[in-house]
Amino acid sequence: MIKVTIIGSGNVAQHLINVFLASAQIELVQVFARKKESVLHLLDFDKIVTAYTDLKEADLYILAVSDGAISTVSSQLPFVNKLVVHTSGNASITALDDKNRKGVFYPLQTFSKNKPIDFSVIPICLETENPTDFQLIDKVAKSISTAVFTINSQQRKALHVAAVFVNNFTNHLYQIGQDICEEHQIPFGILMPLIQETAQKIKTLSPQDAQTGPARRHDETTIQSHENFLTHDNQILIYKILTQSIQNHGKKL
Amino acid sequence: MIKVTIIGSGNVAQHLINVFLASAQIELVQVFARKKESVLHLLDFDKIVTAYTDLKEADLYILAVSDGAISTVSSQLPFVNKLVVHTSGNASITALDDKNRKGVFYPLQTFSKNKPIDFSVIPICLETENPTDFQLIDKVAKSISTAVFTINSQQRKALHVAAVFVNNFTNHLYQIGQDICEEHQIPFGILMPLIQETAQKIKTLSPQDAQTGPARRHDETTIQSHENFLTHDNQILIYKILTQSIQNHGKKL
Repeated sequence: MIKVTIIGSGNVAQHLINVFLASAQIELVQVFARKKESVLHLLDFDKIVTAYTDLKEADLYILAVSDGAISTVSSQLPFVNKLVVHTSGNASITALDDKNRKGVFYPLQTFSKNKPIDFSVIPICLETENPTDFQLIDKVAKSISTAVFTINSQQRKALHVAAVFVNNFTNHLYQIGQDICEEHQIPFGILMPLIQETAQKIKTLSPQDAQTGPARRHDETTIQSHENFLTHDNQILIYKILTQSIQNHGKKL
Repeated sequence: MIKVTIIGSGNVAQHLINVFLASAQIELVQVFARKKESVLHLLDFDKIVTAYTDLKEADLYILAVSDGAISTVSSQLPFVNKLVVHTSGNASITALDDKNRKGVFYPLQTFSKNKPIDFSVIPICLETENPTDFQLIDKVAKSISTAVFTINSQQRKALHVAAVFVNNFTNHLYQIGQDICEEHQIPFGILMPLIQETAQKIKTLSPQDAQTGPARRHDETTIQSHENFLTHDNQILIYKILTQSIQNHGKKL
């Protein structure tokens, strides 16, 4: 069994605790949390530590903390030359303190509290400074997911930005859809099959081939009628910018 | 059996032909197409007409034509006082010529050629000028879908605009995600589980509660680092506008 300790108690930490507890190949040694209560619903009291000095020997220490805390927390660890990885999409591997061996273990998913997740299909992006360490975190990743990728810091940052577009920004477009429905007393649920089909479609078609709508077919009458129909400046601005972006896509500007 | 004739041969017409041919409650009388070849793979040669004067008696004539053609085509029909409906999300019921009884039969979905669709879950939005006509198209709609709604022209237009946001614009965000991946030699498939989860999530959470990411948590360091990372002005502009929109959402401006 590979001995793993998690440092952190947020969304990512909690999902990792659950999935490691369920894995036959991983022994979850300890979890470091500022307050024991935050993870007490997940594991035994005596496995939770609140002082770095109480951390025991492990093969791998996973820092599931916010980007801004990676540097401080990794420098406060009371041991050297161990394998310490962070779970951030945006932070470089070099954000970790030099006194330990460094790596990244980045699960590319949106984690919400109270929404269970099937970890086995979540892509995990791995990076280490040396090959032996890579073998270890590769084993850990493959024990919980079937989608494990080698991704360097620059690529990981690109992925993180791309994820903001396809996840955070897409969700905001759902929000605008709901706002427009509410304004006109229409149940938002009417749009649900369309939303699901839009996501399903690109499993078999490229976004390029899946693109439909007035912007794509340069239907200026409909575009104008939509812009006139919208009442919020912010919605009109987003409508204009995205319509233009669809129309210019692939063109050399 | 309710006798239905379809006028048009595009995406929507073709999907309707398929689903009506499979329905036990509908008799597809004829299809009007400018060129017989365009629908010959779907139905018998002798059911396809290319002249309005060849149109036979039916209970319902469905105009599945482009928005701009609704007015001309409906005025060219060689009969009066029949029930004629269009299938547009954006056009008003009044776009139809006055000589026949008017209605709207709007299936709210994105139709791609070569991508089969389960019609039974597609919302169909109905509108007529009189209640008897409504009963008829309600029967037709319920024979092919379990999601039938009464939606007036104003609401339908709102739905159509909302659909552009959650479908066309969302697909364009997928496109940008793919562009960023390609630029950094990352397979776009890594983002697929995230895209699917983003769409699945709002089945159980409101877009408001499902919103995550640097914009939502006002993480200005990450936002700045993303904006610096992006190399295309167009992507930077969309990033800025959508980040701002998430941050201002719900505020009185």
